[in-house]
Amino acid sequence: MKRVVGSPGTWSGMVLRLSQCVFASASTFAMVSGFGYSNYSAFFYLNVSLILQLMWSLFLACKDIFALRNKKDLHTADNLLFIVLIDFAVAIFMFSAACASASLTVFFMWDVHLCKAYPRLACRHFGLSVVLAFITWFLQAASSFSGFWLLVSFF
Amino acid sequence: MKRVVGSPGTWSGMVLRLSQCVFASASTFAMVSGFGYSNYSAFFYLNVSLILQLMWSLFLACKDIFALRNKKDLHTADNLLFIVLIDFAVAIFMFSAACASASLTVFFMWDVHLCKAYPRLACRHFGLSVVLAFITWFLQAASSFSGFWLLVSFF
Repeated sequence: MKRVVGSPGTWSGMVLRLSQCVFASASTFAMVSGFGYSNYSAFFYLNVSLILQLMWSLFLACKDIFALRNKKDLHTADNLLFIVLIDFAVAIFMFSAACASASLTVFFMWDVHLCKAYPRLACRHFGLSVVLAFITWFLQAASSFSGFWLLVSFF
Repeated sequence: MKRVVGSPGTWSGMVLRLSQCVFASASTFAMVSGFGYSNYSAFFYLNVSLILQLMWSLFLACKDIFALRNKKDLHTADNLLFIVLIDFAVAIFMFSAACASASLTVFFMWDVHLCKAYPRLACRHFGLSVVLAFITWFLQAASSFSGFWLLVSFF
């Protein structure tokens, strides 16, 4: 089994997946606890993406823990291809949702100054959620590239 | 010289670059001709990305035409690496700008129904511009992957 940092079935891979879970949960919590988030499509879309990300990362973290405990090799071409394809799809979802929400937050904060005019709107929560979503995306991209690198080395 | 569809220095590559130019120009024109676009950060960011895309695609289209006329081989590892790296950066820029603008357009159209309440706001122009920007991004992604595929086959 090749040792590529962050690839499936390694300690670093598991840590990466668990940190994705932590950041995705934190981002979801920051968004959901903000007043008025559900009125805006972009924030709703971010929440859907975060939950998708959370489920996928949790599933792979469990798989990694299982493989590490039982010394099972996850680096078969079929398994890697499946993981890398879904990883890239999830990463693209996360990135688009983070960009969409960032755009709306910037609009509220600086374009129309709605946060000052209407203090009940939870702009700080939205901002925090967007930053955490970008960190989640970054970690997800790291996992994807690590798997992809391993997959390329098969051929 | 390997013949990968859409790679630098081929007819299909040149057609891909020229269509990127056409769609990027059309998207910029649709945005600029809409009243009130400059008040919003996301639309401004889309315009900057589109102009960047236009310059890069035009430069590579000229390079392709030059290479095809003079039968020059553009498929050296250095040249490809340079093109693929900038291609991916431009594609990420375009995608983020398109998502950000799409989010704001959806907000105007369906979240707060600002387009009905304030008909002077050029929502149709914004919508058209976003669709064209996504097509540009798709063509740019095709170019990037074609170059990347060629680059991988070098190693």
